[in-house]
Amino acid sequence: MAEEKIAVDLSCVQISASGTEEDDVVDPWNVTSKSQTGIDYEKLIKRFGSSKIDEAVIERFEKLTGQRAHPFLRRGIFFSHRDLNTILTAHEQKKPFYLYTGRGPSSAAMHLGHLIPFIFTKWLQDVFDVPLVIQLTDDEKTLWKDIKVEEALKLSQENMKDIIAVGFDPEKTFIFSDLDFIGKCPAFYQNMVRIQKCVTFNQVKGIFGFGDSDVIGKISFPSIQASPSFSTSFPFIFGNAKLPCLIPCAIDQDPYFRMTRDVAPRIGMPKPALMHSTFFPALQGAQTKMSASDENTAIYLDDSPKKIKTKINKYAFSGGCATVEEHREKGGNCDVDISYQYLTFFLEDDEKLAQIKQDYSSGAMLTGELKKELITLLTALVGEHQKRRAQVTPEVIRQFTEIRKLKYNYS
Amino acid sequence: MAEEKIAVDLSCVQISASGTEEDDVVDPWNVTSKSQTGIDYEKLIKRFGSSKIDEAVIERFEKLTGQRAHPFLRRGIFFSHRDLNTILTAHEQKKPFYLYTGRGPSSAAMHLGHLIPFIFTKWLQDVFDVPLVIQLTDDEKTLWKDIKVEEALKLSQENMKDIIAVGFDPEKTFIFSDLDFIGKCPAFYQNMVRIQKCVTFNQVKGIFGFGDSDVIGKISFPSIQASPSFSTSFPFIFGNAKLPCLIPCAIDQDPYFRMTRDVAPRIGMPKPALMHSTFFPALQGAQTKMSASDENTAIYLDDSPKKIKTKINKYAFSGGCATVEEHREKGGNCDVDISYQYLTFFLEDDEKLAQIKQDYSSGAMLTGELKKELITLLTALVGEHQKRRAQVTPEVIRQFTEIRKLKYNYS
Repeated sequence: MAEEKIAVDLSCVQISASGTEEDDVVDPWNVTSKSQTGIDYEKLIKRFGSSKIDEAVIERFEKLTGQRAHPFLRRGIFFSHRDLNTILTAHEQKKPFYLYTGRGPSSAAMHLGHLIPFIFTKWLQDVFDVPLVIQLTDDEKTLWKDIKVEEALKLSQENMKDIIAVGFDPEKTFIFSDLDFIGKCPAFYQNMVRIQKCVTFNQVKGIFGFGDSDVIGKISFPSIQASPSFSTSFPFIFGNAKLPCLIPCAIDQDPYFRMTRDVAPRIGMPKPALMHSTFFPALQGAQTKMSASDENTAIYLDDSPKKIKTKINKYAFSGGCATVEEHREKGGNCDVDISYQYLTFFLEDDEKLAQIKQDYSSGAMLTGELKKELITLLTALVGEHQKRRAQVTPEVIRQFTEIRKLKYNYS
Repeated sequence: MAEEKIAVDLSCVQISASGTEEDDVVDPWNVTSKSQTGIDYEKLIKRFGSSKIDEAVIERFEKLTGQRAHPFLRRGIFFSHRDLNTILTAHEQKKPFYLYTGRGPSSAAMHLGHLIPFIFTKWLQDVFDVPLVIQLTDDEKTLWKDIKVEEALKLSQENMKDIIAVGFDPEKTFIFSDLDFIGKCPAFYQNMVRIQKCVTFNQVKGIFGFGDSDVIGKISFPSIQASPSFSTSFPFIFGNAKLPCLIPCAIDQDPYFRMTRDVAPRIGMPKPALMHSTFFPALQGAQTKMSASDENTAIYLDDSPKKIKTKINKYAFSGGCATVEEHREKGGNCDVDISYQYLTFFLEDDEKLAQIKQDYSSGAMLTGELKKELITLLTALVGEHQKRRAQVTPEVIRQFTEIRKLKYNYS
């Protein structure tokens, strides 16, 4: 999709003078980097005009919540934000806000990378005790992929099981699929129209790289991903309250919310705040995002222990040296080693992680030993996820998707 | 809106070689003609590629229904069609079909011209005994005009009163406003997405003349006017049945349904059939359609008897001569006389109409006398409409708009 690349190049030109053909490509449909260490996130912050989540922000977080920051924060996985301080100030002043995140259900099985925003969002919900809305953009998948409406609805149901298995509380969380919910909530559709009235084709062309041969559903879709950013889209939860919204998401989704933030004041609503995550790397290396269409690029949440072991041993890109002798002498490179990268996401014990880094870098730990650590960790993590997912009956899904008031009251 | 004119010019080039700068402009937002007798409808049939409603069609109509054709048919007011014979054959074979028409509620008061499709649709429903769905595109009005969502919803309610006052039967008729109903029917939204997936920006640019600076809501709107053409958008009425649809409408709405007919086979649905009406002329003459923004161009359904009298006497363009003497000698021109034109719409008595034509053309009848005939007719017609409208309580509106089964059964 050449047009999307052009769009990103244009945004480089607009935002920083450093954009060249060598730039990483990051938009909702393409994430590619030519560097073995993956996307240059510092550069991306400049290009997108967002703010870095630095030590000061993390400290404020910890002070306000009285909790140690989540590993995703401490380790720079959620690395960038927009207006996060507004949300923290609201919380400090005991003013309400809410969380919004989502997923495009392009396949029945989700992989580890898909869990990242949900794990982090659950943590945010736990420490702030606020409502959360989760959007499944099955309409988007119908429009972009060779997926029929009926099939997309089924994928939403399957993905909901994985999302619910992360551990959300139905008293605090509303989950919806667009193809089902939009036809059940006039206020949501009305906000879609309000947003669609504020955005021109020229704008979505610039932001998303849409072209004249794109179908009209794609062109108006950004309004649908924007709508949950406004509390008035969910009157059954928020009444008439106009609450600020915090959106944790991977940074490739930022274009949708830059657009949303432009629209917000024009429809009398607060701009949503954002927290952006880095990308979870493919087993083959950090140059690309994992692909749902090549199952060997990712650990899936329904993979068996045997499959996890084989995938990691066979495909996880190694930062080690070619021979044991050379490795003992020179040590491994954690910056490109995928097994180590995965541990930074899922090994909660900071000390153990630091020890592994030291041992692998020095050559004391071999690639096989490092991979064994990861296999043990992920086998347990995925196994527990599968157990929780098996508990998610249609009745449990109904508890999350039913149009209803949550446990919070708004005037 | 120069772009729309270009679009129409393009369609001239494509469909007939006769398109020139002198052509009438007919699209959903512009209807203008340089001729005093108004739009050249014969030419329009060729340009749009539709079929003429000729004597043979009218005879078949009468034979099938056992009823004399409605004056709008006999007098060429519904003059053009697409696939009408398919519908008539279905009826002949006792196969079900349904009717769909609609209105864009841009003002609280409707005028006489707005009644034409509803009067004719009611007649069709009476003679065929089939379900009818009526769409109020208040979302369109929000997107195109300086009208807020809340205001558009109110205009829909007001217009529903006028539509219901035409005499529809709530057991056979479902009336809906987009801003209200789309958020209450997942099947409707799902059909919108199916249609949006089949139409590119290039296509709506060609059909409707949309440009890069148009808002994204306009660009995807045609899918919303297309959706009621498919019976699967109303599962509460039709179950899973895929019924053919007949759409009576003014011919300026044809572009929407040309698009819809292209999409239909791609989503496994029958193409809607159409019956097109001419435009009800403005008081000032047939060069333009009546304008809701200039109240003196039209007789409104809430006009008082005094206002009707004043408007007709003061503004109705006369085909008479400058002096009584000249008129007696040369006679009047019925082809351009608006009072006579209005009588062709509303005076049911064919003989009386013929007599008036003869008398006015010969000079035996003066303009003042002709206008008096029209004033008497319209004062009664509007007065009766107002009485019926006064009976339309919120409870009556609810009977028509409630999501429910109609009196028909489908397997």
